[in-house]
Amino acid sequence: MSVKEIAEIARKAKLASSQIAALDNEKRSSALIAYGEEIKKNQEKILAANKKDLDNAQSQSISKALLDRLKLDSSKLGSVVSGINQIAKMQDPLGKIDLARELDHGLELFRISCPIGLIGVVFESRPDALPQIASLCLKSGNAIILKGGSEAEHSNKILFDCLLKACRKSEIPTDAFALLESRSEFGELLKADEYVDLIIPRGSNELVRSIQENTNIKVLGHADGVCHIYIDSSADWDKVAPIVIDAKIQYPAACNAVETVLMHKDIAPQMVTGLCHALKQRNVEIKCDKKVKDMLPAEFDAQITDQWHTEYGDLTVAVKIVDSIDEAIEHINKFGSGHTECMLGEDRDLFEKFFTQVNSAGIYLNASTRFADGYRYGFGAEVGISTSNMHPRGPVGIEGLVTYKYKLIGNGQIVSDYVGKEARSFSHKDLTNN
Amino acid sequence: MSVKEIAEIARKAKLASSQIAALDNEKRSSALIAYGEEIKKNQEKILAANKKDLDNAQSQSISKALLDRLKLDSSKLGSVVSGINQIAKMQDPLGKIDLARELDHGLELFRISCPIGLIGVVFESRPDALPQIASLCLKSGNAIILKGGSEAEHSNKILFDCLLKACRKSEIPTDAFALLESRSEFGELLKADEYVDLIIPRGSNELVRSIQENTNIKVLGHADGVCHIYIDSSADWDKVAPIVIDAKIQYPAACNAVETVLMHKDIAPQMVTGLCHALKQRNVEIKCDKKVKDMLPAEFDAQITDQWHTEYGDLTVAVKIVDSIDEAIEHINKFGSGHTECMLGEDRDLFEKFFTQVNSAGIYLNASTRFADGYRYGFGAEVGISTSNMHPRGPVGIEGLVTYKYKLIGNGQIVSDYVGKEARSFSHKDLTNN
Repeated sequence: MSVKEIAEIARKAKLASSQIAALDNEKRSSALIAYGEEIKKNQEKILAANKKDLDNAQSQSISKALLDRLKLDSSKLGSVVSGINQIAKMQDPLGKIDLARELDHGLELFRISCPIGLIGVVFESRPDALPQIASLCLKSGNAIILKGGSEAEHSNKILFDCLLKACRKSEIPTDAFALLESRSEFGELLKADEYVDLIIPRGSNELVRSIQENTNIKVLGHADGVCHIYIDSSADWDKVAPIVIDAKIQYPAACNAVETVLMHKDIAPQMVTGLCHALKQRNVEIKCDKKVKDMLPAEFDAQITDQWHTEYGDLTVAVKIVDSIDEAIEHINKFGSGHTECMLGEDRDLFEKFFTQVNSAGIYLNASTRFADGYRYGFGAEVGISTSNMHPRGPVGIEGLVTYKYKLIGNGQIVSDYVGKEARSFSHKDLTNN
Repeated sequence: MSVKEIAEIARKAKLASSQIAALDNEKRSSALIAYGEEIKKNQEKILAANKKDLDNAQSQSISKALLDRLKLDSSKLGSVVSGINQIAKMQDPLGKIDLARELDHGLELFRISCPIGLIGVVFESRPDALPQIASLCLKSGNAIILKGGSEAEHSNKILFDCLLKACRKSEIPTDAFALLESRSEFGELLKADEYVDLIIPRGSNELVRSIQENTNIKVLGHADGVCHIYIDSSADWDKVAPIVIDAKIQYPAACNAVETVLMHKDIAPQMVTGLCHALKQRNVEIKCDKKVKDMLPAEFDAQITDQWHTEYGDLTVAVKIVDSIDEAIEHINKFGSGHTECMLGEDRDLFEKFFTQVNSAGIYLNASTRFADGYRYGFGAEVGISTSNMHPRGPVGIEGLVTYKYKLIGNGQIVSDYVGKEARSFSHKDLTNN
């Protein structure tokens, strides 16, 4: 599509977004249920389209892992449909009032949740991501322009067609949804800052960074995930090894996997060798500072590093000894990416210090960093994880896809009456308990 | 100061921000009360410094309005101190839990409000803005780097010194606060995206726009305020004229003053001439579309315009006739700036449509747009008004200066136990009512 066509799609979607915003929850949810039914009804067609994608991928000798992610089957489609139905059943995220205040008699202020508007999402090769993202956006009343992985082109197209069919049946304006086909089209969309309110890139750090550098639109996501585990001197060994191992090896490529372990100097002599051995046994390569190296047996194979802002994303972990919790906090705030950090320890007061002073989206005590995930948090699903220090932060589910408006209901009030000598005064009375 | 010195100030302030974040409300509030006392104690010195600024300003033949804003006296300082005390007494914005959920037995998730970190604020010539902004930031646990108007240099310096004295007395790290002296220094600060979390520019649209274009740091504020009043066919004339007049003339330079009036075609024949006359009588110049021009008496002086995205900021207003509420909504979403819009009308269902479909921070029924203000909303004060479509949106007071973190408390949980065949399942039980 041409630049002009992409801008026109965005313009129309933005226009339709205010109609989507005005739909009640029943309407949005029943469209979602219809979407699930369309997927069930078109299962054969979807699997045939997916077969085409798989054949193309195989002819390009794509990795086994990618093929697994690309492949749909009836069981995966079953989960997709039950995921959609779960989102349909969730509480309405719109119209929630979190501030209700009388400013004066007959002049009432409310702060009410509402959709963001038009969201552009670029996502990875997994075709089941499309219905998941689209459902979260529709439930939250947002219009959406999608661009999936090119490997999943045929699968995405038919999954998207099912969405359009469901919307038509539910009398929802289909202009609010669009599927782009090429990365260059998405590049054009990044210029449509007049219409697009938020961009969500799901994919490699390079993709996220390149999008952040090429648009004026707000970008939700994370360019890196450099997560830390700080092992305090109060740590319990029985928790240390299992958590560090889980955080590193359970899914090393994930953004919430641990990259750096900081260990308090008082506990290091007892723990560092055992922990490094346990990691080594699981094929984890150790990078460390000189202090750690000196504590390890001479024959232990560990490379010295001073590159602390590194997301290994594989079976490698950095280990460093710190003199105090303060040094750990400073290290994390300096070299971390604001994603998720964990303290292992039994001293709750120290953890409170760690919690208030570390500036990341998730701060954990004695639990694997791998829990940082919308599904595990109970958000139903997530569109991504935000390492921004402002809202939405951390795993972003439906709640992260809404914003708010102020509604002021008056009956003729003017500001002139509230200034000067005979000024009326404001009552500022809370209305929430009435 | 050199580039390097500015970066060093920012680095230290960012480091100190985590200490500020860890202070309890009592500590932050008592430092504020001490700040008020320092201002009272140093009143003579402050007024002498202000006298210098006034003398300099007068020798540069600065406008009367600017001189009025620059001038401090004991009554203004009294309000400053009572404002600080009011902020000190406000509820603690930090540590508020808005999500508490058991993920599994012994694994509990909380979402807790926390400071943003380090905030850079550039503000106008009014020296009383300094204690107001500094108080809001200290109460919300943020570190802050300030740059005031150069006309108020001496006044700002001593008001800032009072803050430092109060912090020293209250054992609050003074590195968390800095005052820059020149605009070029603030320009250097805009490059310190490693340390600064948020920039708040208060000042002209040009200033805001130039800052937005010259930094990677998130900017809170508004580059324009093109506010609308839509007069529906259900409008009550007795409310129409007073509200439009107030919204235009009560303070025409304000960002929440009305710039464009949209009038439903069915009511225009009855109202347009009366309204335009009423405005004209108050020296408001009318710009309008051809339909309005044709309805006005031939001798009525009104210029035709088609420049609908114009912030006049003076005694000028644009008037346009629309065929429907839909056209009004589309016009506002296209030409507005997302600030504040008002519908005048008695049809509440239509207003709900207007509310859900107009994409601005404030949507009013039958009240002047000039109410869009942190003080009038009961926020105590405001650091600015945000026209972003995401948080913080609208007038930004203390609540807008906080963000949140997720706290996860476990006792050794790992993700491996929650995947695969024998997977534990999540309970996702709400803990708020316990």
